[in-house]
Amino acid sequence: MYSKKKVSEAVIKRLPRYYRHLSELIDANIERISSTELAKKMRITASQVRQDLNNFGGFGQQGYGYNVRLLRDEIGNILGLDQELGCIIIGGGNLGHAIANYRNFAKRGFKIKGIFDIDENVVGTTVNGIKIYHTNSMIDFIKENKIDIAIFTIPTPAVKSMIDEVVSAGIKGIWNFSHFDMEIPKNIPIVNVHLSDSLMTLAYKIQENENFNI
Amino acid sequence: MYSKKKVSEAVIKRLPRYYRHLSELIDANIERISSTELAKKMRITASQVRQDLNNFGGFGQQGYGYNVRLLRDEIGNILGLDQELGCIIIGGGNLGHAIANYRNFAKRGFKIKGIFDIDENVVGTTVNGIKIYHTNSMIDFIKENKIDIAIFTIPTPAVKSMIDEVVSAGIKGIWNFSHFDMEIPKNIPIVNVHLSDSLMTLAYKIQENENFNI
Repeated sequence: MYSKKKVSEAVIKRLPRYYRHLSELIDANIERISSTELAKKMRITASQVRQDLNNFGGFGQQGYGYNVRLLRDEIGNILGLDQELGCIIIGGGNLGHAIANYRNFAKRGFKIKGIFDIDENVVGTTVNGIKIYHTNSMIDFIKENKIDIAIFTIPTPAVKSMIDEVVSAGIKGIWNFSHFDMEIPKNIPIVNVHLSDSLMTLAYKIQENENFNI
Repeated sequence: MYSKKKVSEAVIKRLPRYYRHLSELIDANIERISSTELAKKMRITASQVRQDLNNFGGFGQQGYGYNVRLLRDEIGNILGLDQELGCIIIGGGNLGHAIANYRNFAKRGFKIKGIFDIDENVVGTTVNGIKIYHTNSMIDFIKENKIDIAIFTIPTPAVKSMIDEVVSAGIKGIWNFSHFDMEIPKNIPIVNVHLSDSLMTLAYKIQENENFNI
């Protein structure tokens, strides 16, 4: 059903939100939902919902709406959550700990297999059952454990030089929390999380709110 | 120059990225930039750049391009970064620590004034010079210290009941890391950071990449 055409970035970004809202509906034992109701949850229009899902072949039935579980599972397949993705965290600091402790990741098929740091004081310890190794064993670890995703949580410029290494070792995608927008070789996908950007967006909205309420 | 019309969500989300890229140009001593060059950095079209900035009155000059520092400062003003925003972090766990240690926030005018937790073992300690207080003193603290932003880093449903309290105490905006999409009273702006969504987007891109490279 899912053809290999390019889907727009905006739609791709909404897919995880569909997945999350549909999962919540399943938890609440709701079996079907109309595009109007789903649109309300997503805070977009019903026509946008239909358009989004048409990218992947529809799923909806006139007069019935969407079967919540089927739609959730199909979106899961589209997102690639039906296969386990092996991850490593680079950086055993607070952010690395926070991510290692995040329960939802395992539920979504992301298995964190190791954490890497250069600090001898943390090497050998574990976080949420995941061992912290020294960074100098990272490349072998990636190759031996079929690691798909490298999660960069270190804020230093050192990140830039490590990218080439992990990509050469076989990493398929990078999740980046460092504040560099990195250039990635070989078409490897990267998703940047710029926390400052998110906070600045909030500042804008606060100011806008105050302007409108004068 | 900046009129009080509603600006689209997509433009608002790009403003912090403009701000960040322009700040990097300033650090690299670059004084002016064309819309084409700026578009390349932003990974959007030059016409999109001009359109975005026209929302706020232009700034560019035909044949010259943009003055980097002026444009950065104007965008900073638009974002509301010219005024200090007082913040508290709710939750003194790993994520709370990571955010308290984030150096860029202070540079952007976000001042974290306190961290709140119910765990007696951490109450009284400090993170990056910021004191951890018991949650039961939070409402008074918000009122007495003119706190603008509440940053929720706790993953529990307890968040929902705390929202009303902090809003009543005078909070102007909420930055939410819990995985609930919260309903906020009184038009208070909220920015949700759903880390799982971001990671799922990466999973999609990895799969898409593999499909295209077959």
